[in-house]
Amino acid sequence: MAVSNLHCLQHSWRFSSRGRVSVSSSGYGRDHIKKRSALLVFASNNKIDKVETLLDSVKWDDKGLAVGIAQNVDTGAILMQGFVNRDAVATTICSRKATFYSRSRSTLWTKGETSKNFINVHDIFLDCDRDSIIYLGTPDGPTCHTGAETCYYTRVSDLLEPSEAETEGGKLAETTLYSLESTISQRKAELEVPQNGKPSWTKRLLLDSNLLCSKVREEADELCRTLEENEDKSRTASEMADVLYHAIVLLALKDVKMEDVLQVLRRRFSQSGIEEKKSRALQG
Amino acid sequence: MAVSNLHCLQHSWRFSSRGRVSVSSSGYGRDHIKKRSALLVFASNNKIDKVETLLDSVKWDDKGLAVGIAQNVDTGAILMQGFVNRDAVATTICSRKATFYSRSRSTLWTKGETSKNFINVHDIFLDCDRDSIIYLGTPDGPTCHTGAETCYYTRVSDLLEPSEAETEGGKLAETTLYSLESTISQRKAELEVPQNGKPSWTKRLLLDSNLLCSKVREEADELCRTLEENEDKSRTASEMADVLYHAIVLLALKDVKMEDVLQVLRRRFSQSGIEEKKSRALQG
Repeated sequence: MAVSNLHCLQHSWRFSSRGRVSVSSSGYGRDHIKKRSALLVFASNNKIDKVETLLDSVKWDDKGLAVGIAQNVDTGAILMQGFVNRDAVATTICSRKATFYSRSRSTLWTKGETSKNFINVHDIFLDCDRDSIIYLGTPDGPTCHTGAETCYYTRVSDLLEPSEAETEGGKLAETTLYSLESTISQRKAELEVPQNGKPSWTKRLLLDSNLLCSKVREEADELCRTLEENEDKSRTASEMADVLYHAIVLLALKDVKMEDVLQVLRRRFSQSGIEEKKSRALQG
Repeated sequence: MAVSNLHCLQHSWRFSSRGRVSVSSSGYGRDHIKKRSALLVFASNNKIDKVETLLDSVKWDDKGLAVGIAQNVDTGAILMQGFVNRDAVATTICSRKATFYSRSRSTLWTKGETSKNFINVHDIFLDCDRDSIIYLGTPDGPTCHTGAETCYYTRVSDLLEPSEAETEGGKLAETTLYSLESTISQRKAELEVPQNGKPSWTKRLLLDSNLLCSKVREEADELCRTLEENEDKSRTASEMADVLYHAIVLLALKDVKMEDVLQVLRRRFSQSGIEEKKSRALQG
């Protein structure tokens, strides 16, 4: 898994004999001398050369920039997008904090240097054209300067159909799992005020723990039976969807986010956790 | 949920009295006449005005461009990144196919126009600065021209530590859940060749359906007990992680991807599915 590899990288780059990197806020970095200044803190020429080669392979535009996208490694949410130059990428490799180049201020900036809401980078990926990079990381807090979790909270369909926006309220760009989680959270919040009419299925589950737990157990059993009884693949997908939905209702009742769960999974796997722990438990 | 709102939007824009949109491949679109030509196919001035206002609110750069990111609405994978101009966004709103502006060819291009691997856009989001947009969609096939699922398959740590790359192989930028899923798939593939030593826990589960199903049921039960016995939130997150891990091993055995499961969830929710179906089932 991503994290374990980066753990090695972290050690090899971050804790060099020359200590933590401290990079000059030079301009677009087309000057080779400037370029190297950002890297001089690396311990050995070999390491400098490797990062130099990597940075040389990026297809910088005529201003020495490429697109940088910060993505939450657990939820997949796109947190923000900025531009990066050589120094920004070199700084991110060393500091593990997502760093960009501000075109308006002509300076490097590390997301969080003011707010302390850093984005802790676990992995960096380049695209096929080498002119776009992803910083996969975990945010220390809301990423957007407005206080929103991500910068993408303006939905085009709400702008085109404002009546819907009024009833739905502002909404982040969310993928399926988190959109479902938000809907369930919203149902839970609605229970705070008196309701007219028959409650939805989600609300009934939220109001009745016995019903909810019996459904979670039942759906897990049905998922297993698709394997035991050699049922069609589509049945497995459908039963797993049921397991997920009911389990997320349970998480909502306990005020636990899917993000917390995924963080547990990431940590376990980065320590070869689950496999080892379970293997030991079985032998024990 | 996202999809239902966009369904309305799709109808209101796509099936206008003037039929499907057909947008000129004009340049950067700074000319107002050119701009409007892309929108003339909309049915009413009211609708044209709304899209015009939306496009006016985007902070286009000095070349009339903004950053466009295509993201898989189900998995959260960043599929590709390109640039968009007014016409590209207008075309995407109408056609629901992710459309960009090619800087090298100075023309609009719809991803998939050659390969037929379109990205079907469900939702569009602007960032706080209004100079970056996300197309949230479902890809018809691999997005990258190389045949890779996404364009982000070049991992910086592999470039810096090539020895790891050799043992691990090429790896997409994956978030926690899909990284776990890939690891489990890899374990399954490894079972095809004779193994030395004690199999890992994942492999034991893959080899023994009885053990796997008993674990899935057990972990679901333990998850429920964190609610029933009012255990700590961290226990809930931990037990849910166990449920997910074991359930994904089961999915791997059945050759079902999490993406398939999330597609089921998205479709159900866009039809107010689960809530209604389950509510009916309970009453029936």
